[in-house]
Amino acid sequence: MRAQQRVDYDVVLVDGLFDVDNRILLEAGGSAGDTLRRFVVVDDVVDRLYGSRIREYFAHHGVESRIMAMAVSEQAKTLDAVSRIVAGFDEFGLDRRREPVIGIGGGVLLDTLGVAAGLYRRGIPYIRVPTTLIGLVDAGVGVKTAVNHGQHKNRLGSYYAPVAALLDREFLRTLDERHVVNGLAEILKIALIRDECLFELLETHGGLLVEQRFAGRPAGSSAGDGDDVAFEVLDRATTGMLDELRPNLWEKVLDRLVDYGPSISPTIEMLALPELLHGEAVAIDMSLFTVLACRRGLVTRHQRDRILRVVRDLGLPTRHPLLEPAVLSRALADTVRHRDGMQRMPMPVGIGAGCFVNDISESELALAAKELHELEVDGG
Amino acid sequence: MRAQQRVDYDVVLVDGLFDVDNRILLEAGGSAGDTLRRFVVVDDVVDRLYGSRIREYFAHHGVESRIMAMAVSEQAKTLDAVSRIVAGFDEFGLDRRREPVIGIGGGVLLDTLGVAAGLYRRGIPYIRVPTTLIGLVDAGVGVKTAVNHGQHKNRLGSYYAPVAALLDREFLRTLDERHVVNGLAEILKIALIRDECLFELLETHGGLLVEQRFAGRPAGSSAGDGDDVAFEVLDRATTGMLDELRPNLWEKVLDRLVDYGPSISPTIEMLALPELLHGEAVAIDMSLFTVLACRRGLVTRHQRDRILRVVRDLGLPTRHPLLEPAVLSRALADTVRHRDGMQRMPMPVGIGAGCFVNDISESELALAAKELHELEVDGG
Repeated sequence: MRAQQRVDYDVVLVDGLFDVDNRILLEAGGSAGDTLRRFVVVDDVVDRLYGSRIREYFAHHGVESRIMAMAVSEQAKTLDAVSRIVAGFDEFGLDRRREPVIGIGGGVLLDTLGVAAGLYRRGIPYIRVPTTLIGLVDAGVGVKTAVNHGQHKNRLGSYYAPVAALLDREFLRTLDERHVVNGLAEILKIALIRDECLFELLETHGGLLVEQRFAGRPAGSSAGDGDDVAFEVLDRATTGMLDELRPNLWEKVLDRLVDYGPSISPTIEMLALPELLHGEAVAIDMSLFTVLACRRGLVTRHQRDRILRVVRDLGLPTRHPLLEPAVLSRALADTVRHRDGMQRMPMPVGIGAGCFVNDISESELALAAKELHELEVDGG
Repeated sequence: MRAQQRVDYDVVLVDGLFDVDNRILLEAGGSAGDTLRRFVVVDDVVDRLYGSRIREYFAHHGVESRIMAMAVSEQAKTLDAVSRIVAGFDEFGLDRRREPVIGIGGGVLLDTLGVAAGLYRRGIPYIRVPTTLIGLVDAGVGVKTAVNHGQHKNRLGSYYAPVAALLDREFLRTLDERHVVNGLAEILKIALIRDECLFELLETHGGLLVEQRFAGRPAGSSAGDGDDVAFEVLDRATTGMLDELRPNLWEKVLDRLVDYGPSISPTIEMLALPELLHGEAVAIDMSLFTVLACRRGLVTRHQRDRILRVVRDLGLPTRHPLLEPAVLSRALADTVRHRDGMQRMPMPVGIGAGCFVNDISESELALAAKELHELEVDGG
């Protein structure tokens, strides 16, 4: 048996998603003759902040909508949550092809809804509306779905594409600074492995982006400046991410440049729970491997220092007490197991390009961690 | 975002799957450098009848194997069963790419395992070994997975292709006659919609196939005769099924000739529970639509009578008390809802071809049911 499946979905940067004049949310994933009913799954915070606007939006357009609000957490990201969402679909009497389900929320909400949409009647259309910066540039634009199982994070899931991902910066206005910075770590990753220009934008405007929540139009400055930068940064980050994902959407190939950042960070993140956000752990990982790349001559000292400075200036950590030999050895072993017996370690090459190596030794990692510590404590 | 996924798997008719000299089960879905561990999920009956042979087979080849035996039933075909299988994967410490999981059993077992394999780490390789005739020619060779949810049959699942489907007629030896006949209904369906030669084989040898359980080599006749027929029937049925599935593996198109049989039978099967097996309900449905097709001139009276005779001769029912107007109207409405608002009714055209119609009225269905009753009671 041999067959081909095409996956095709829109990723749209949109302003004012809930403005009644904006028909994108209404029409995404549908067509003219579609029934006018929508089932919307949101997390509790989104319901509190945007629930009434969402209801008004659909009511204005004569659409029968139902909003299902869920408490989200890593603990509640389970098959049981999937089961509850599915019961909601059944109760609403969802049409299996013509009424795309809409998910609005952070990574946990979108991951869980994705599993439910992928399983329900062997897959129904769904729309992703990420509300965090990390969602806008990472989880929100891809096709991965997941819930936890047993002690294992994201152990169950699938590659199930949405019919559309709608990215609205407006959600970032209500995001606290730490979570904006968390998302910037993912943008920095894309910059380092493939886009020197994006790196320079972060280097020049990083602080402004955090301060303005990517919303632009700073009071007292010429309107539009910050806005242009925010739009360009998001556009480059999502485009870059999509370009990396496209040829390998189902991860048949385990050499993935986007795994720069999660080289040893999954173990660090888990051991440090709940101290580090995902992007913070990724930033520590990127800093360590920048130093290691410099020791190998892949990155110059000048480039290394620029990278570490941008990490710090964005408000991200560059190091962590867990970067010690025993933990690093364990993290390396975990990664090798996860990548089918090979290291497949993405490494920066200068700024804006990457390569893979398979010969990192435990002692090399330990020496790089020691050097990072000295650079940051003594010289940083 | 636009990407393509290729699905590619082998469907192999194999004799003596557990013979130690037969390396197919050992090597399916793997490659030379693979680790030699296998996790096997079976239903209780398979464990009792074949468990020791499976263990011996792998032990002979130096393969560390574990067999997980499950009690299967429609009631137990749930997300909880998926969760238990997944816990088994975790406990075994399954390699995510290089240790294909093997499922050996009937439709419920393979459907449930398929969901687990599809979700675990976003999909691990798995091998389908169907042990029923209906599994050999239908569920075993396709890509659908499913569990029940709430009151709904197969409400959750996916299209998740195995790395191989291994079809061994030997399992049919331990199958009771009713379940052999049940599988023949699916073979008859393939014959009617696309393969006149297969129909003639069933017409001529149907009784022999049931009697010999597709095993051939009848005592007292020339060895090989029955065997050749059994092999050809299975080969034509599976090839025909795969040819129908291939261009529409993900069911984007809802006009499916293989839905001949399940036109109104899902409702009949459910209302009659637990009286009718799936193939029996399908046979009743095919009989009804054969009569209806004859009334429309799509099938001649002679062809209609041949078809009804083969259904009877195979030991399948042609009619049922539930074929009465109120039930038929409800069944028609259910089907239209399931097919996105259109009937998309597959109809036989002569013997060995089919077409679709969208204009069947409730009264036409009722009249066909009445005629079928008269033909069978008065003339049959």
